[in-house]
Amino acid sequence: VSGEGGAVLTPEVGRFEVRCERCGRTVARRPYAALCPDCGGTLGFVYDEARRRRFGADFDAARTMWDAAPLLPVAAPARAVTLGEGGTPLLAASAAWGCRLWLKDETRNPTGSHKDRALSVAITCGREMGFGGCVVISAGSTGLSTAAYAARAGMSCAVVVPAGTPDERLVPVALFGGRILEAPGTFETALRLVEGFTRGREVYLTSTYRRGNPYQAEGAKTIGYEIARQMGELGESPDWIVVPTGGGGTAAGIWRAYEEMRALAGAGWPARAPAAGTRQPRIATVQPAAYNALEIAMRDGLQDERALYALGISEETPTVQAKLQHGVPPDAVYALEALRASGGVAVSVTDAAALTAQRRLAAEGLFGEPSAAAALAGVRLMVETGVIKPADRVVALVTGSGFREMAAARHSLGGIGRAPLTERSLVAAVGGG
Amino acid sequence: VSGEGGAVLTPEVGRFEVRCERCGRTVARRPYAALCPDCGGTLGFVYDEARRRRFGADFDAARTMWDAAPLLPVAAPARAVTLGEGGTPLLAASAAWGCRLWLKDETRNPTGSHKDRALSVAITCGREMGFGGCVVISAGSTGLSTAAYAARAGMSCAVVVPAGTPDERLVPVALFGGRILEAPGTFETALRLVEGFTRGREVYLTSTYRRGNPYQAEGAKTIGYEIARQMGELGESPDWIVVPTGGGGTAAGIWRAYEEMRALAGAGWPARAPAAGTRQPRIATVQPAAYNALEIAMRDGLQDERALYALGISEETPTVQAKLQHGVPPDAVYALEALRASGGVAVSVTDAAALTAQRRLAAEGLFGEPSAAAALAGVRLMVETGVIKPADRVVALVTGSGFREMAAARHSLGGIGRAPLTERSLVAAVGGG
Repeated sequence: VSGEGGAVLTPEVGRFEVRCERCGRTVARRPYAALCPDCGGTLGFVYDEARRRRFGADFDAARTMWDAAPLLPVAAPARAVTLGEGGTPLLAASAAWGCRLWLKDETRNPTGSHKDRALSVAITCGREMGFGGCVVISAGSTGLSTAAYAARAGMSCAVVVPAGTPDERLVPVALFGGRILEAPGTFETALRLVEGFTRGREVYLTSTYRRGNPYQAEGAKTIGYEIARQMGELGESPDWIVVPTGGGGTAAGIWRAYEEMRALAGAGWPARAPAAGTRQPRIATVQPAAYNALEIAMRDGLQDERALYALGISEETPTVQAKLQHGVPPDAVYALEALRASGGVAVSVTDAAALTAQRRLAAEGLFGEPSAAAALAGVRLMVETGVIKPADRVVALVTGSGFREMAAARHSLGGIGRAPLTERSLVAAVGGG
Repeated sequence: VSGEGGAVLTPEVGRFEVRCERCGRTVARRPYAALCPDCGGTLGFVYDEARRRRFGADFDAARTMWDAAPLLPVAAPARAVTLGEGGTPLLAASAAWGCRLWLKDETRNPTGSHKDRALSVAITCGREMGFGGCVVISAGSTGLSTAAYAARAGMSCAVVVPAGTPDERLVPVALFGGRILEAPGTFETALRLVEGFTRGREVYLTSTYRRGNPYQAEGAKTIGYEIARQMGELGESPDWIVVPTGGGGTAAGIWRAYEEMRALAGAGWPARAPAAGTRQPRIATVQPAAYNALEIAMRDGLQDERALYALGISEETPTVQAKLQHGVPPDAVYALEALRASGGVAVSVTDAAALTAQRRLAAEGLFGEPSAAAALAGVRLMVETGVIKPADRVVALVTGSGFREMAAARHSLGGIGRAPLTERSLVAAVGGG
C-alpha cells in the first residue's frame, strides 16, 4: 500500500515492544518517558516474529527507508510522516583513493542530511503517541530536520539555539515555522534550561541521542540495511563502513542494523542475505582532531561516559567540522560498542584534512559539507597508515550537504577564480573536443 | 546490471537515430552539430522497436531515471555519467489547496534541481561522443549541474557568467572545478561572444534548450515517466501537471513523455499502462508576471519565435523567480505545442505570490526556491479562477531547492523572529502534548 507521502510502505504488520536495556522491563509508550521509568536505563525495541519475517521478505525490493518499517518502532507505517527520506544513492568513487571506495550520499535527504531518517521516525512516533508539538536543542542539522518534519506533521516545534546563532543558519528553520528560542549561553546552558523547564511535563524532545529520544535512534539503522542491499546488488559486501561522528548514534545504528541482519540470516532471509548478513563490516568513526574522545577511548580502553568526561575535552575549540563538535559524544557508549564488536577503528582528522577531502569529494561530483567530507579524510588517513588495504571495499558516509555550509566552502576556496571571457580563455577552459 | 553510479541500469539494447525534425534527414552523432547540418532544423531522436519494448518491460519496476534509458539517446546506459539523479519523491500535499495536489520534489536531485536529469544525459552523451570538455552559459542551475557532472565524468568545463555575478552563486561551481569565465556584459552578450568564439569549432555546449543541445532535452521526459508511474501506483492519473517555466524545455519534455507512452500503450505496455498511457494530463506553465510571453502567446494565438520577440519583453525587470527570467523562452515553440496539444493553460504569477507560495510549500515540509514555489502560486491562481476544479488531480513540479537561494528566503521572511528561552516561551512554542 502507499502512504501519504507517496512512498511505498509496508502494510501494518506485527508488534513491537519498548524495553529497558538495563532492567529488561517492558515500558508503555505513554505516559512518555525517554528513559526507563524504573531504573533510568536506555530504552530499546523488540520486534516480533511477524515483523522480522516481513522485513526479510521485503528486503530485496526495498526502494525507500520505509520499506524497512517492520524494524522501526512505528505502529502504523502507512501513516508515517515522510518526505521521501532514505533510499539514497551509493556511488562508486572514481579517483584513486587507495581502496575500493563507494560513497553513500546522504546529502540527498529532504533537508540535506542523514538526520532526516531519525526525524522521520521521531516525528512519526511523536504523532502516534499524540504529541501536538516537540522541542529540540540544535542550531544544525537536527533543528532543521525537526522543523521540516514537524511542519509536515502539522505539529508545533520549538528550536532552542545557543546565544548568537547567526541568522543564516536559521532561515530555513523559520521558513518551516519552527519557533526559535535563544538560550542565554552555550549549548550546555540551553540543555540544562530545557531540562529544568520540562521536568515533570510530558514534553517530546527530538534530539538525536538515545537517552534524549529512543525512537529516533532506530532511523539510523536504515542506512545499514541500504548499504547491505546496495552492495549486495553489486555482488559485494563492505569490509569497512566509515562514519563521520558527532554524537555517535549513526555509527551505533548502522552496526545494530548489521547485527539484526545477522540474527535474521538464519531464518528465511532472502536471496541477497548471505552477502548482506553473514559478513559483518568493520565500523570506523571519524572525529575532528580536537574532539577525539573515541580515538582516546579505543587507545586507552575507556569504557564508560564518566571516563570520557574526565578527559576534559573543551567544546570551545573552533572547528570547521561543526556538526561533529562534541566533547563527549552523547551516544559514545554505543559507538564504542560498535567499534569494539566490529573490530573497528576510531580516527580523527584536522580541519585542513577535512577541507582537502571536501575538494576531492567535489571532484567526484558531490558537494558535501566539511563535517561530511571528514569521512573521506578518514579513509585517506587509514589508507596511508595501512589500516585500510588496497583490496578493501569501503563505504564512506557523506552525511550532509555543503549547500547548508556555504561559508565554509567559500572560505576553503579562498577567492572564486574568474577569468575574462575571451576566445583564448574559452578554448583553454573547454579543453580538447 | 549496475552502472558506475550504483544505479541499476538497463542493459545495452537496441538502437536510436538522430533525426532532423524539419527535413527528416538522419544525422550522424559526429561530427557533432546541435542543429541539422543540412537545413538547420531541430534534432530529435527515434528509438527502435527493441528499445521501446524494453522501456515498457522495465516501466513498473523503475527506481531511477536511468531505468528509462531505452528512451534516452545514450548508446551504453551502463556507462552513464550518473550521480543518482531522478527517482524523486511524489508527495501528497496536506493543506487545503482547493484540489487534490501532489508535489513532485525535484529539489532532491544531486545539485538540487531538475536540471540534473538533463545534464546527466548531456554529459553522458558528450563523453560517448568523445568530448573532453564542455561549455555552458549560466549563473544558475544549469551551470552548477554542468560543473558537477563534468567533474563526475572527468571532463573539463567552462561556466560562462554575466558580469558581476556574485561570488556566492559560484562557490559550488568553483568547488566542482568549473572554470568560471566572466563576460563583459549580460547573458545575451555572453551568448553572442561564445557563439562567435566557437563557430567552426566542435565545441560541446550543455545549455538546456533544444537548439543549444538536443541530447539534454530528453532528460526532462523522465519526469513524465515517473509521474505516470508514481500516480499509477496510487491508482491515479493526473489531470494537470503544473510546471514552473523559464526556457520551456521541461514542460515540453514532460508532454513528449506522455505522447510516447500513449504511442506505446497499444503495443504490449505493462500493467499500469492504461492509467499512465491512455489519459493525457493537461500541461500548465507558470511564468513570472513580468515574463509572461507564453500567456500572451496562448491568449493571442501566437505561433512562432518571431512573434514572441516582437512582444519586446525586457530581460532587465528584476524578479525573485530568477530561474524563470526569460523574455522569450528558448524552447517556447515546443512549450506552446505541449500547451495546445494537451488543452493546457499558461499563467503568470507575481513575485509576492511566489514568495507566499514558498511559505505555504514550507508548511508542507519542503524548502523550494521562489522559482519552484511559482508552481504552487500557479495552482492557487488556477483554483481561484476555476480553471482547476476541486476534484482535479494536480501534480506540481517543485523544480529547485531553496538552499541555493538563501538570500531570497531571508528577504521574504523579513527578520528571523527569535524569542528568549524561558519556561513560558518554551511551553507556548511546544504547544499541547
